[in-house]
Amino acid sequence: MGRWEPGARERLAEAALELFLERGYDATTVADIAARAGVTERTFFRQYSDKREVLFGDPAEYNAVFTDAVAGAPADASPLDAGAAALRAVGAWFAGRHPYARRRAAVVAANPALQEREQVKRLHLTEAIAAALLARGAAQPAAALTAELISVAFHQAFVRWVAADEESDLGDLAISVLGELRGLAR
Amino acid sequence: MGRWEPGARERLAEAALELFLERGYDATTVADIAARAGVTERTFFRQYSDKREVLFGDPAEYNAVFTDAVAGAPADASPLDAGAAALRAVGAWFAGRHPYARRRAAVVAANPALQEREQVKRLHLTEAIAAALLARGAAQPAAALTAELISVAFHQAFVRWVAADEESDLGDLAISVLGELRGLAR
Repeated sequence: MGRWEPGARERLAEAALELFLERGYDATTVADIAARAGVTERTFFRQYSDKREVLFGDPAEYNAVFTDAVAGAPADASPLDAGAAALRAVGAWFAGRHPYARRRAAVVAANPALQEREQVKRLHLTEAIAAALLARGAAQPAAALTAELISVAFHQAFVRWVAADEESDLGDLAISVLGELRGLAR
Repeated sequence: MGRWEPGARERLAEAALELFLERGYDATTVADIAARAGVTERTFFRQYSDKREVLFGDPAEYNAVFTDAVAGAPADASPLDAGAAALRAVGAWFAGRHPYARRRAAVVAANPALQEREQVKRLHLTEAIAAALLARGAAQPAAALTAELISVAFHQAFVRWVAADEESDLGDLAISVLGELRGLAR
């Protein structure tokens, strides 16, 4: 996809984010985004199905950061420990993306259509983690519930991470939230 | 709202559900739903903003089932125990709604637009529970994390409850899932 225009996908995402922050999501068109990125509208639609998708990257790639780590955890790791490995992996994946993540979070928080999309992304992530746990031999309902706990830990850590004064590593934060959840449940 | 047409709101929801099951969500129009319910389109739009909303009732009423129970829990109850009281309350609220809930779940599962709306409903519920816990003196992050645990317990219990062979009380199921989560976290 788009090999003949190196970086078009990333440039479109950055252009969209700039415009959403400058003018608002509703007032920005696909034509605006393509122009800011220096590509045609046709190139936009080769990369993304619509304006809403431009801030959501490739869900398969994103989920694979979690699920590859779950699959690669030691065979004797518990479901929760395999999930914790995924939190570490996604923390590393986000390491260079902090400024982008903060700006993106501000846009998503201000737009119901993007919040909806973000929630669906979270649901699909939780389902992908549960499937990865089942694939390594976890039973139900442990797989589904562990996936929910990992998803909660990640989501709550992410909320803290994009807050203005939070500079910790996202993976460390997520492991810490998982510890808080375990403390609460005791 | 709609006092001059008693039951219009419920009749519209039932008509929509029937039509979505018979013809599919995309092939059903607001005009179809209004006709099946024996009301005008104008009455539909006095009750619901659009076709997607007709299966979602009044979010404030729904969230209040949880938050009133949280607010009404004994002053010395822990956040998790106040949340458990909300699971009992919502179980009672759903007691007469099992057949409707099953048919509705089948429609939602088949339609991405409805799944999105369902996820947003879940997010708002989680936020409402967290706010109710804060209002009764819980600290952060315990309030946010407890709300997530309660929301997971409810969601996972609901998935089991609408499965064809599950006849337990929804509140009992949710308390049982909360126990499983606590067991996993140990």
